Amino acid sequence: MRFNVTYLVRSDAASIDARAQGIAIEQSVEMPLEAITDEAVLGDIVGQVEDIRDLGAGRFAVRIALAVATIGQDAGQFLNMLFGNTSLHEDVILYDVDVPESLRDVFGGPRHGIVELRRKLHLHERAFAGSALKPQGMAPADLGLLAERMTRGGLDFIKDDHGLADQHYSPFAERIRSVMAGIARGVRSTGHPTRYIPSLTGNLDQLRAQASLARDEGIDCVMLAPMVAGCPALQAMVKEFADLVFFAHPSLGGLRIAPDLLIGKLFRLFGADAVIFPNYGGRFGYSQATCRSLADNARHGAHAVRPALPVPAGGMTLTRTAEILDFYGPDTMLLIGGNLLLAREHVAAEAEKFVRAVADHRYQQD
Amino acid sequence: MRFNVTYLVRSDAASIDARAQGIAIEQSVEMPLEAITDEAVLGDIVGQVEDIRDLGAGRFAVRIALAVATIGQDAGQFLNMLFGNTSLHEDVILYDVDVPESLRDVFGGPRHGIVELRRKLHLHERAFAGSALKPQGMAPADLGLLAERMTRGGLDFIKDDHGLADQHYSPFAERIRSVMAGIARGVRSTGHPTRYIPSLTGNLDQLRAQASLARDEGIDCVMLAPMVAGCPALQAMVKEFADLVFFAHPSLGGLRIAPDLLIGKLFRLFGADAVIFPNYGGRFGYSQATCRSLADNARHGAHAVRPALPVPAGGMTLTRTAEILDFYGPDTMLLIGGNLLLAREHVAAEAEKFVRAVADHRYQQD
Repeated sequence: MRFNVTYLVRSDAASIDARAQGIAIEQSVEMPLEAITDEAVLGDIVGQVEDIRDLGAGRFAVRIALAVATIGQDAGQFLNMLFGNTSLHEDVILYDVDVPESLRDVFGGPRHGIVELRRKLHLHERAFAGSALKPQGMAPADLGLLAERMTRGGLDFIKDDHGLADQHYSPFAERIRSVMAGIARGVRSTGHPTRYIPSLTGNLDQLRAQASLARDEGIDCVMLAPMVAGCPALQAMVKEFADLVFFAHPSLGGLRIAPDLLIGKLFRLFGADAVIFPNYGGRFGYSQATCRSLADNARHGAHAVRPALPVPAGGMTLTRTAEILDFYGPDTMLLIGGNLLLAREHVAAEAEKFVRAVADHRYQQD
Repeated sequence: MRFNVTYLVRSDAASIDARAQGIAIEQSVEMPLEAITDEAVLGDIVGQVEDIRDLGAGRFAVRIALAVATIGQDAGQFLNMLFGNTSLHEDVILYDVDVPESLRDVFGGPRHGIVELRRKLHLHERAFAGSALKPQGMAPADLGLLAERMTRGGLDFIKDDHGLADQHYSPFAERIRSVMAGIARGVRSTGHPTRYIPSLTGNLDQLRAQASLARDEGIDCVMLAPMVAGCPALQAMVKEFADLVFFAHPSLGGLRIAPDLLIGKLFRLFGADAVIFPNYGGRFGYSQATCRSLADNARHGAHAVRPALPVPAGGMTLTRTAEILDFYGPDTMLLIGGNLLLAREHVAAEAEKFVRAVADHRYQQD
């Protein structure tokens, strides 16, 4: 049983056949074929070049069939076989993977996804509106106050800045209690079930301890950065804390893996219910086409796993709400962080404006 | 307390001041400064641009001082603060970090390093010689036979190919028993204490279970890929299995983090005793200068942590032994994998030639 992996390779036309064959070997047996004596290995395990397409300008799309048997059950080993050593070549980008059904069953994708997020927030049509608690360095009490103000604005989600970890100025346990208390105060005035998304950090033991603490506080959504914590940790956590909704943060995601693949497809596959990514036109250089494809990967295709919620972020502003909603449609969470905080003590009002803009939006596109 | 981080940025001269300031903010508070009301955050937490050096050809070295307080105790959070979101900018490379003493104490570096490897192998002067068990797809018994042959050649180390995980054709427990039995048979004829380095994979629980199994089999060296398993997992494992020697595999290391930094300095810092990397002139595009710097980072500087053993690999051949030894000197392990396996059933003799070349080498350089 094999599955297809596509790489983008910068190469001259004369070398591309050899380059493609080199990648097929590197990502499978990683040794000279003439040194392999085992016929089954030669037939079943060695990667096979299926197609080489000239994209012009010295770029080629190389499709290689890898053996499912080399993966086992581990998300890390999956990435290892997809791109482990080849990631060390500066002129190769991991571009796409046709995830085989057997691996889809192994990983399982989101345990909740868009449907459950809509149920939790009682929002069945409009897009979600979220913001982020920052700057890091603030004390828990101040973060709690900020969360209260944001909640008063009626936001759907308030996430930790991904810089918030377990620092001495804001220890995890103290922080989540203070933020949850702030949100509860806000909710008493709005009646809207605003959710807090704390950022989990550290190794698997620490992730577990933090997730348990969060659950004890009544939190049902959490965030982690799979490339920081390790994809095997994400895989373990979504299985073990199946009641929690997991947001994947793209931190350290700047591998030369196409972002729509890594963030949209793979993080979803490993179980992220929602995937945060830098929106086009913000602080990062992602194109509209990349963002479209990333959101499509998160929501569509792969029918055997649940749709995950795309969360475009990274330097968004309130004035762009309409445009972004038209681009992504309603199965989306808009995340405005720093820009909302520019309102300082009026952040509740600013948040309210933001939520209203999301709620009142009339889509130009279907 | 602050520490310096250097980024290489592609930019035009007119924009570089703003780009540098943007990175300083992105890797600290990640929000508009004018929205920050807390004076302590502005003074102590916000990243500060310390220096911008024009390297010519539209490249700049930007030195930024980040706050130690934002890191806490976690290797993942360290990488997150060094490069998390900025990794998503295609025109920025994380180039170097001056690791502050407090973080050196937190992470601790190699628990064994070169000194202990020399003691274990009774090799106090010459370089080490290693090879790799492959191709994946082989049954445990065949891997055991291959290991026996390699051992008969007198190799110092025999590592798992990093593709070997816990696949059905070669389950971890069965594989390490078979390989250890093969090595024991070989050692009876050579008397040389050849070491096996199995590859640990999966999440922290699985890494632990595999390390325990390995230890029960009398294994004292193991390998893991920090970018696959997650750096927090490496950090936890070296602490918990302080008796084991850890080799770091570079798989998935093709982030735009300078490899001499990621592999030489950071993996060592997090506790790797030996770091495997693609040698210049092999299958990967690393330059001599990168390899020199990587080996220097692994062995020298950072006097408060133990030296880690540089392990150049990736398409090495026996004919290059002398040249590579002259380049790296004796505190090195040469790793020849596929090329040794070309000898097929004569791999023991080929391994012996390799070991003899290492042992008999007379250094041209000091």
